[in-house]
Amino acid sequence: MEPWRTAIATSNATGIWIRGHEITSLMRGHTFTDAIVLLHLGRLPSPGERRLLDAVLIGVADHGAGAPSCATARLAASGNRQSISAAVAAGVLAIGDDHGGAGSNCMELIAEGVALAARDGLSIEAAAEQLVARAVRDKRRLPGLGHRVHSTDPRVQALFDMAREENVAGSGIVFMRALEAAAHRAIKPLPMNIDGALAAILHDMGFTPPAGRFLFIVGRVAGLTAEVAEEYEREKPMRIKFDVHYDGVPPRTE
Amino acid sequence: MEPWRTAIATSNATGIWIRGHEITSLMRGHTFTDAIVLLHLGRLPSPGERRLLDAVLIGVADHGAGAPSCATARLAASGNRQSISAAVAAGVLAIGDDHGGAGSNCMELIAEGVALAARDGLSIEAAAEQLVARAVRDKRRLPGLGHRVHSTDPRVQALFDMAREENVAGSGIVFMRALEAAAHRAIKPLPMNIDGALAAILHDMGFTPPAGRFLFIVGRVAGLTAEVAEEYEREKPMRIKFDVHYDGVPPRTE
Amino acid sequence: MEPWRTAIATSNATGIWIRGHEITSLMRGHTFTDAIVLLHLGRLPSPGERRLLDAVLIGVADHGAGAPSCATARLAASGNRQSISAAVAAGVLAIGDDHGGAGSNCMELIAEGVALAARDGLSIEAAAEQLVARAVRDKRRLPGLGHRVHSTDPRVQALFDMAREENVAGSGIVFMRALEAAAHRAIKPLPMNIDGALAAILHDMGFTPPAGRFLFIVGRVAGLTAEVAEEYEREKPMRIKFDVHYDGVPPRTE
Amino acid sequence: MEPWRTAIATSNATGIWIRGHEITSLMRGHTFTDAIVLLHLGRLPSPGERRLLDAVLIGVADHGAGAPSCATARLAASGNRQSISAAVAAGVLAIGDDHGGAGSNCMELIAEGVALAARDGLSIEAAAEQLVARAVRDKRRLPGLGHRVHSTDPRVQALFDMAREENVAGSGIVFMRALEAAAHRAIKPLPMNIDGALAAILHDMGFTPPAGRFLFIVGRVAGLTAEVAEEYEREKPMRIKFDVHYDGVPPRTE
Repeated sequence: MEPWRTAIATSNATGIWIRGHEITSLMRGHTFTDAIVLLHLGRLPSPGERRLLDAVLIGVADHGAGAPSCATARLAASGNRQSISAAVAAGVLAIGDDHGGAGSNCMELIAEGVALAARDGLSIEAAAEQLVARAVRDKRRLPGLGHRVHSTDPRVQALFDMAREENVAGSGIVFMRALEAAAHRAIKPLPMNIDGALAAILHDMGFTPPAGRFLFIVGRVAGLTAEVAEEYEREKPMRIKFDVHYDGVPPRTE
Repeated sequence: MEPWRTAIATSNATGIWIRGHEITSLMRGHTFTDAIVLLHLGRLPSPGERRLLDAVLIGVADHGAGAPSCATARLAASGNRQSISAAVAAGVLAIGDDHGGAGSNCMELIAEGVALAARDGLSIEAAAEQLVARAVRDKRRLPGLGHRVHSTDPRVQALFDMAREENVAGSGIVFMRALEAAAHRAIKPLPMNIDGALAAILHDMGFTPPAGRFLFIVGRVAGLTAEVAEEYEREKPMRIKFDVHYDGVPPRTE
Repeated sequence: MEPWRTAIATSNATGIWIRGHEITSLMRGHTFTDAIVLLHLGRLPSPGERRLLDAVLIGVADHGAGAPSCATARLAASGNRQSISAAVAAGVLAIGDDHGGAGSNCMELIAEGVALAARDGLSIEAAAEQLVARAVRDKRRLPGLGHRVHSTDPRVQALFDMAREENVAGSGIVFMRALEAAAHRAIKPLPMNIDGALAAILHDMGFTPPAGRFLFIVGRVAGLTAEVAEEYEREKPMRIKFDVHYDGVPPRTE
Repeated sequence: MEPWRTAIATSNATGIWIRGHEITSLMRGHTFTDAIVLLHLGRLPSPGERRLLDAVLIGVADHGAGAPSCATARLAASGNRQSISAAVAAGVLAIGDDHGGAGSNCMELIAEGVALAARDGLSIEAAAEQLVARAVRDKRRLPGLGHRVHSTDPRVQALFDMAREENVAGSGIVFMRALEAAAHRAIKPLPMNIDGALAAILHDMGFTPPAGRFLFIVGRVAGLTAEVAEEYEREKPMRIKFDVHYDGVPPRTE
């Protein structure tokens, strides 16, 4: 087997280096969020970027035990009390397009919109308008817009205010606000959700679309571990019961 | 089904609260590491504690693609290129007593040693001595001590220096240094490893033993996501080959 | 890296062999259950053993969507509709000591009881009596006995009848019936459950204790795949909601 | 929370029913493979169908420890020796489009080809020809055709011979042989692989495309459990080492 190649981390008997930075130097002078950026982008963040990413990770860490990822982790812990890893991993497995995955899909849309504007000499607003028109025509949902509970998500405004304060705001935020406005005109009020805000900020920091999913997972695992810890401490195994209604073929008499 | 109960997070149409803190307030004024402590301990860390936990999380994030968790994540991505969640979860599943799990086992030993000292009016050093003698008698390994590569782990000294600088050092660090010294006398030089240092610091911050495993997972997921991202970007599916030597019963002729 | 060694399967450009049997020969003349025994024990089962193992695997495949493994798989599919593997794996992760894992624990008890009888020249009944007395003294539950719903599990009698018909019954079944009787005398009526019956039969077929867990997983994955298939076909993403009652510290005003 | 609905299995204090069949009746008179068909299709197979599905499940169960699913399961067990479920689940997570997933993609192509023939009044051969031409034009690979090791897969002929013997062969097999012939003419010799044969047979038994993936998982879990059992029995934790070549930015001096 040929050696694997990697540009992320290396170690020998005397030390460990992450993207070329000696690990104890990182440990002494940097935050975990710095290390997350370094691992993914190969560079340390500016202070403003660090503050933004801290806010993004906090914003997705946890909003309640009933979210699919948290509930899946707890349910796995309910049957299998012998493996912390198994419960946390089960929670991660519930993360997909419908839960936590809209950020990366939205980052693809942002990248497409920004590229479209550049290619055709359009304003970002005009590009957003075209992409909304296409979504209407193809009857597809726009990622990053819309809420289950019909109200404004306070995390969105908080993130965008911070992005402006820290001068991190770029074409991602411009595009997402333009998308929200164009969708309002063409469809109905569809306020931006946390996935859309996360996507805009990660785009403006230079992340590629899959990072929307990777960083959601990093933030959410902080919450998943706390949920599983509480399940172990407060609850008995097998405590979760579901009412199930069988509507299949009736029992046969054989 | 009765409602689930939780003391971690709650949300309604107007906001989200983590351990009673409004989420946008956390996002504006705190770091991700603060939120991790809040989620797990129900309180925010002191600046010194935050710095220590940042260092711990960086210290376990990644030290190379060949570690079982990183390699498992990459291997899953090699066969299944359609699910980021699946690859990261596979990596988490490789974390156990032999990889990333020694911290929580070591925290149990620390708790036992500190309780023994309190109960019998012993010094921490005398308690450590007794626990080393017991391990020798029972032929059991001491968690938190010893290296595969026979040298000092630079992360240990860095963490303990920071703990002293920040006044976070407590009975956990005292116990682990006493354990290391007693093991040296009774067995052989067994320098403390990262699991032992992590255990000492988490103990001194007030975490219970399972947190050793939970926080290893939180830190390592930062590395796992970067490893999977690199696998997607640089490598083709199915690229990982193993040489396998079959030594079972020979093919039958039927 | 040294080659991995294995005695299970090998292949080259002309064929595949499982435990020395050419795979197309197995495909033409044997059942899947035969192959499961061959993979695990290195030999094909007798017709009676095959029938027993078929019954065991059917017996654990599925008993309803609300079991932790099935519910965990569905819940993961509810958030992540893009990966069949992820949903099935999440279901597997809910299998542990409290759900599906009692069989292997019970097989350890059987092995201990049978060894105790041999070592001390006791009858199986006397050995069972001693192990019940120990469990009472140590306040430990006896694996394989007792039901959540207080009634006789019809699968137990069916399996034991078949074992007798097929002459597969051995010391495992004798021990489990003796354990049930001794527990009845010393504690209360604790009818044998499916884990206990599975353990007895697998012991009598020559499986070691971990097989209790491995074969539960093999049988249950048949059910998990059907549950996930139904979730995909009949239900929308994100359809599973939980009522959650927050009882933590009240929201702060900051 | 509303009750979940299901048509698969139900149970009460007196019994368990799968698709309306009482479970002990299934256990007494049927095979595990019968139960797999019943769980997925809601009906028991004919004797010929049972024989075919047994052959399919054996055919995908295992062909060596180095396959991504088997290697991922072993690697997880190498770091985490405390959870059988975790290791098996990790192996399942390596199953995707590139490993074990081609069957379901191929079933979609068969369904498309058969529908195309019916809609346009074409022969199956003409429909296969059109779909090969489209794949050539779109530069897409044809699922179910082609081998890594350039030779005929003996499992394919074995399955098709049995399908003819048992009168299970239908439009799925006709289509796949036509696809293979059309690809040979238009591209190059691309002998059918096990995924293509599995797809043809499952199509002819009435399974829908996702079943290609579900049934691969059911078969492969038999092998994964045996691989993990062997890893536990023969190997030490942490035994798997990888050579890793770091080619990132060189260590900095700070």
